[in-house]
Amino acid sequence: MLQRYFPILEWGRTYNREVLTSDLMAAVIVTIMLIPQSLAYAMLAGLPPVVGLYASIMPLIAYAIFGTSRTLAVGPVAVVSLMTASAAGAVAVPGTAEYLEAAITLAALSGVMLAVLGLLRLGFLANLLSHPVISGFISASGILIATSQLKHILGVKVSGETWPEMLAGLAGKIGEVNLPTLAIGIPATLFLFWVRKGLKPLLVRLGMGARAADMAAKAGPVVAVAVSILAVIGFGLQGKGVSIVGAIPQGLPPFAVPSTDLALIEALWVPALLISIIGFVESVSVAQTLAAKRRQRIAPDQELIGLGASNIASALSGGYPVTGGFARSVVNFDAGAQTPAAGAFTAVGIALASLFLTPLLFNLPDATLAATIIVAVLSLVDLKTPGRLWAYSKADFAAHAATIAVTLLAGVEMGVIAGVGVGLLLYLWRASRPHAAIVGRVPGTEHFRNIERHKVLTLPHLLSIRIDESLTYLNARWLEEYVLEQVAERPALRHVVLMASAVNAIDASGLESLEAINHRLEDAGVKLHLSEVKGPVMDRLQRTHFLDDLSGRVFLSQDQAFAELANDTGEEAGEADPMLARGLI
Amino acid sequence: MLQRYFPILEWGRTYNREVLTSDLMAAVIVTIMLIPQSLAYAMLAGLPPVVGLYASIMPLIAYAIFGTSRTLAVGPVAVVSLMTASAAGAVAVPGTAEYLEAAITLAALSGVMLAVLGLLRLGFLANLLSHPVISGFISASGILIATSQLKHILGVKVSGETWPEMLAGLAGKIGEVNLPTLAIGIPATLFLFWVRKGLKPLLVRLGMGARAADMAAKAGPVVAVAVSILAVIGFGLQGKGVSIVGAIPQGLPPFAVPSTDLALIEALWVPALLISIIGFVESVSVAQTLAAKRRQRIAPDQELIGLGASNIASALSGGYPVTGGFARSVVNFDAGAQTPAAGAFTAVGIALASLFLTPLLFNLPDATLAATIIVAVLSLVDLKTPGRLWAYSKADFAAHAATIAVTLLAGVEMGVIAGVGVGLLLYLWRASRPHAAIVGRVPGTEHFRNIERHKVLTLPHLLSIRIDESLTYLNARWLEEYVLEQVAERPALRHVVLMASAVNAIDASGLESLEAINHRLEDAGVKLHLSEVKGPVMDRLQRTHFLDDLSGRVFLSQDQAFAELANDTGEEAGEADPMLARGLI
Repeated sequence: MLQRYFPILEWGRTYNREVLTSDLMAAVIVTIMLIPQSLAYAMLAGLPPVVGLYASIMPLIAYAIFGTSRTLAVGPVAVVSLMTASAAGAVAVPGTAEYLEAAITLAALSGVMLAVLGLLRLGFLANLLSHPVISGFISASGILIATSQLKHILGVKVSGETWPEMLAGLAGKIGEVNLPTLAIGIPATLFLFWVRKGLKPLLVRLGMGARAADMAAKAGPVVAVAVSILAVIGFGLQGKGVSIVGAIPQGLPPFAVPSTDLALIEALWVPALLISIIGFVESVSVAQTLAAKRRQRIAPDQELIGLGASNIASALSGGYPVTGGFARSVVNFDAGAQTPAAGAFTAVGIALASLFLTPLLFNLPDATLAATIIVAVLSLVDLKTPGRLWAYSKADFAAHAATIAVTLLAGVEMGVIAGVGVGLLLYLWRASRPHAAIVGRVPGTEHFRNIERHKVLTLPHLLSIRIDESLTYLNARWLEEYVLEQVAERPALRHVVLMASAVNAIDASGLESLEAINHRLEDAGVKLHLSEVKGPVMDRLQRTHFLDDLSGRVFLSQDQAFAELANDTGEEAGEADPMLARGLI
Repeated sequence: MLQRYFPILEWGRTYNREVLTSDLMAAVIVTIMLIPQSLAYAMLAGLPPVVGLYASIMPLIAYAIFGTSRTLAVGPVAVVSLMTASAAGAVAVPGTAEYLEAAITLAALSGVMLAVLGLLRLGFLANLLSHPVISGFISASGILIATSQLKHILGVKVSGETWPEMLAGLAGKIGEVNLPTLAIGIPATLFLFWVRKGLKPLLVRLGMGARAADMAAKAGPVVAVAVSILAVIGFGLQGKGVSIVGAIPQGLPPFAVPSTDLALIEALWVPALLISIIGFVESVSVAQTLAAKRRQRIAPDQELIGLGASNIASALSGGYPVTGGFARSVVNFDAGAQTPAAGAFTAVGIALASLFLTPLLFNLPDATLAATIIVAVLSLVDLKTPGRLWAYSKADFAAHAATIAVTLLAGVEMGVIAGVGVGLLLYLWRASRPHAAIVGRVPGTEHFRNIERHKVLTLPHLLSIRIDESLTYLNARWLEEYVLEQVAERPALRHVVLMASAVNAIDASGLESLEAINHRLEDAGVKLHLSEVKGPVMDRLQRTHFLDDLSGRVFLSQDQAFAELANDTGEEAGEADPMLARGLI
């Protein structure tokens, strides 16, 4: 029990020197990767760079205690940073104490929500985000984020949360571009693109192993950071209008108390919930992918608790919302991390950086950070999915396209909400129109098949309907309409048999619809029968009055129903072909 | 086409003298029943009595043109009146012009929403209200309405929208009870109860036919109205603190223009949507019940248009939201109405009443109207359903109980929202955990059954999983977790076969999960196979790269998969029993 809520008790017991070496090695590589990323994502979130470092210390330790993935690396990530900027920007001005307080409160709210969802085992709510919606959201967020960073590359001031706003803002400022900034931003961007695409093949050609080359390529941003700092110092660019990071406070994260201001909490709870769900979905997908590679398992509900603890830790140490990141987790995994202790060691690395390294970053230009963000997020933009979805399923394409359009035009929060809404609407629409078939007997057999696909035998006074779905409240009304419509079309009808071989469950609404159908058919002089009812469904029905009130009978098989009802035409007895009754035709 | 949107064109063509006689007869009886009801429900909605009459004229004519039910009687109903009071009360004070404007605007908004839902064929959204939720909502509304009317019986002034507020208000005013009012209210209530329960049997015993006795009993409220008007006049009760209806403007409904104030519309659109959905669900259930008795059909999407037109007509003629009422529709049906023309004739009856009858109603005491409401709504309270639901399904019981509790404690709007929310949550929870079974071969046969229920044959290197549900985004994550968990438990595994005999569809998320499972199993050295994939599902899969990327194969039958994979243990060839491969064991 204790082990379930504290996975550290499980892996901690078998921790040894060998695992320690692997974890330390991975931690060093992830730390090097995470320092520029933390600064960049904090900038994206509209926060001081140091907040990004703070968000990369305590959350990692909390996850090491509570998380179930062995290799997930948590911290600030691009999409959640954008969502933080959007939510905090709605209640305060970037750069103010209120803005920082809003970001910390978002982390606290999100942490509490994630932990509560985990304790209540409500992880299934993340299912509401379908793959097409997530993919559309991530692509659109990538475009939004990259566009939002162009101002740092161009050295102009632009605000706006939606794509049209940003583009219009950039277009209006095109005359004010700061050339020294551009002279840093463009080479940095091109260099980082090359590092991503061209460096690894080059290193491999130079004789480096593929994995080592991959690792080395991850250090590209550090090189860009170092070179651009030297350029700012060497050419005195700060005096020429190049915006730099400036003084970053040295020291460990402070103890912060999230706001208890109810008005602020009321304004932030919806974005906090969306951040929680998006963060969880992103994190759990990464964790599952990596766990499966080593045949390990993660526990999604405990992952909620782990991410909740991370966000609470982030809030208490002056950070902002965090989650498991894709790129850094893959690096952590590839570098050989064996346990979440690697995350704790990374935290120590970042802590050392914030103690000793920050003065070196004074002259780091914002343009370089923007370049690292742009190169990182453009890989999130998935151009293949729309075409694939269009070919596979128009409904899924619609959900995908709606999510992209709303995210770009109305911002990230509306984008998630619209995506969930459209997805759910399409699902409910389909769920309310399940498949059913009028069936008849395949001559000479005991099989009953769809009359539209097979040449089968039917009788004018007997209608057999096979329902290919559980009866729930979503399709209860459809069931009534469908059955009554079929009956209204057949004046000679005397018996309706519902073939329930594919009905796995009947909820109270489904039962009530069956009762209504039974009564309405009775009023119209038609008997209702059931056939092939599954055991568990029958057990439930027997707890009700339905079977007593049923005008007809429950047959074990459709064949038996057909045989026994074939002669009861309501006309003179003996008129129907006796061969039918014996199933010989 | 035209006939679809104007059902009057269909039944109008065959209209003749005989049908006219039936319709006129029904219209007279419904008119007599509707006059006191209209006044009473307007009072419940917090509106002047005449508004109730206005809402019973033009809406009936609009429904006669656009509605598809032959016997539905529209007009003000109890639950919608309560919801109107709640929504209008939130933006204005009862008795003011703003309050009336809010009620008219609600009718206009609701009318437009219903018509748009109908034109977009979105009637399925009403499915979101499950039977347990509707039943809980109606019961709780009945209790709320009856309690809200007690103040008129006691002759005190009390406000409050929730049950605790009302009860506390009544308790605080218990010393101020007006005895003359009570002297009218209590006998009127008892009389109306007796009319409902005891009059019909008495008339039948006196030799009247059962149906005629039923009709006569419906005139009970008219008797109560007449007697109490005479009592007020005879004993001069108006001077003794008995609240009366007072002057009702004589004449036909005015032409009214709904508000175009955006702030008002923003405040009212959510309640208008809830009123629309509740009204539609109530109306369509009644219409379906009655149509089925005569083997007629209604078209739910066109019903939305019919009710939309009724509400727009109500708004344009100074009325408030209307819908099809249960009691009056049954009376209309039993009195022999054949076509919606009966509704139009009822409208003429009410119009005549509002032209000539209103002066007679001057002395009608509010207590009598309250008594008619109380007696009518208490029949809505359903005491049997909670027990039945508890026995049948705890989940449905939970949705029912939550709806009742929230409606009583937080009002009608929150009640509907909570009911839909809880129902959807439970549905999604179940949908995200579909049924699946590990299957093995029943020895000596080609059948594969659940290993937990049958004694079957399995192999350590081969895992067969039968999925009993379509693969959608709601269960995509479950599928990954389930399969990977099963694989993680079986170190000797080499092959996984997903038996898809019950998979009716695979959406894009399901497909992506299959792809993820395929890749993850491949990473772990396990091949993924499919068996018994349905035709339409296979057609779709063939449009993707999935089948090319699949590490294993697609087998026509599970038996074939078992036979062909039985020998591929990954160990020395020939070790597995060749008998297995040939399906002989």
